[in-house]
Amino acid sequence: MVTMLEVTDITGAVGEVCCAPLVKEPLSQQEADQLAVTLKALADPARLRLLSIVASSEGQEACVCDLIEPVGLSQPTVSHHLKVLTAAGFLTRSKRGTWAYYRLVPEALGQVSALLVGA
Amino acid sequence: MVTMLEVTDITGAVGEVCCAPLVKEPLSQQEADQLAVTLKALADPARLRLLSIVASSEGQEACVCDLIEPVGLSQPTVSHHLKVLTAAGFLTRSKRGTWAYYRLVPEALGQVSALLVGA
Repeated sequence: MVTMLEVTDITGAVGEVCCAPLVKEPLSQQEADQLAVTLKALADPARLRLLSIVASSEGQEACVCDLIEPVGLSQPTVSHHLKVLTAAGFLTRSKRGTWAYYRLVPEALGQVSALLVGA
Repeated sequence: MVTMLEVTDITGAVGEVCCAPLVKEPLSQQEADQLAVTLKALADPARLRLLSIVASSEGQEACVCDLIEPVGLSQPTVSHHLKVLTAAGFLTRSKRGTWAYYRLVPEALGQVSALLVGA
């Protein structure tokens, strides 16, 4: 179920990127800087795999404890990548008991897509 | 005018990226590697600005001679960025007289978008 409340979860860089898709009019320097930061967060194989695992998990949420083995990286490295994705607005983090859980912000990928090709 | 012939212009990395959007199922290592290469080509402010200027030019094509001043970089730097975008499949290059002209491959951005959020 998608609720309107999820929109308020977008607090990272993605939510700050604005304006027309790049095929419609030239990006300003500021717009290009913001979009580049967002795309850099995505442009890493480990982060893309982590994001896709979270996104395709039940409820689009996964425990960090279940993300380490599939990508074959150390826990600190996985945590670093998840932090980058969270800072960029693609994931939100919540702690329950011992473990941190990461949930997809589905609107974030849609916003990047809209900037590339239009809504 | 959009012609079917344009599809055959996709010879770069974008055309080699395949498969389901990352929100539907986990990316394999190979898929993640390919998508990361494509996103890295985009994830640079100068390249995003150059791509957006070409994309919003008449006929979605621009002479390299008209791209230098708007981004405020040297011609070798601009040529380097255009080469990266061309290698990644976002632009095609043709030489007419003294100058090189770059044209958008509009399907390429659509393919990246489809990988992020689905078709």
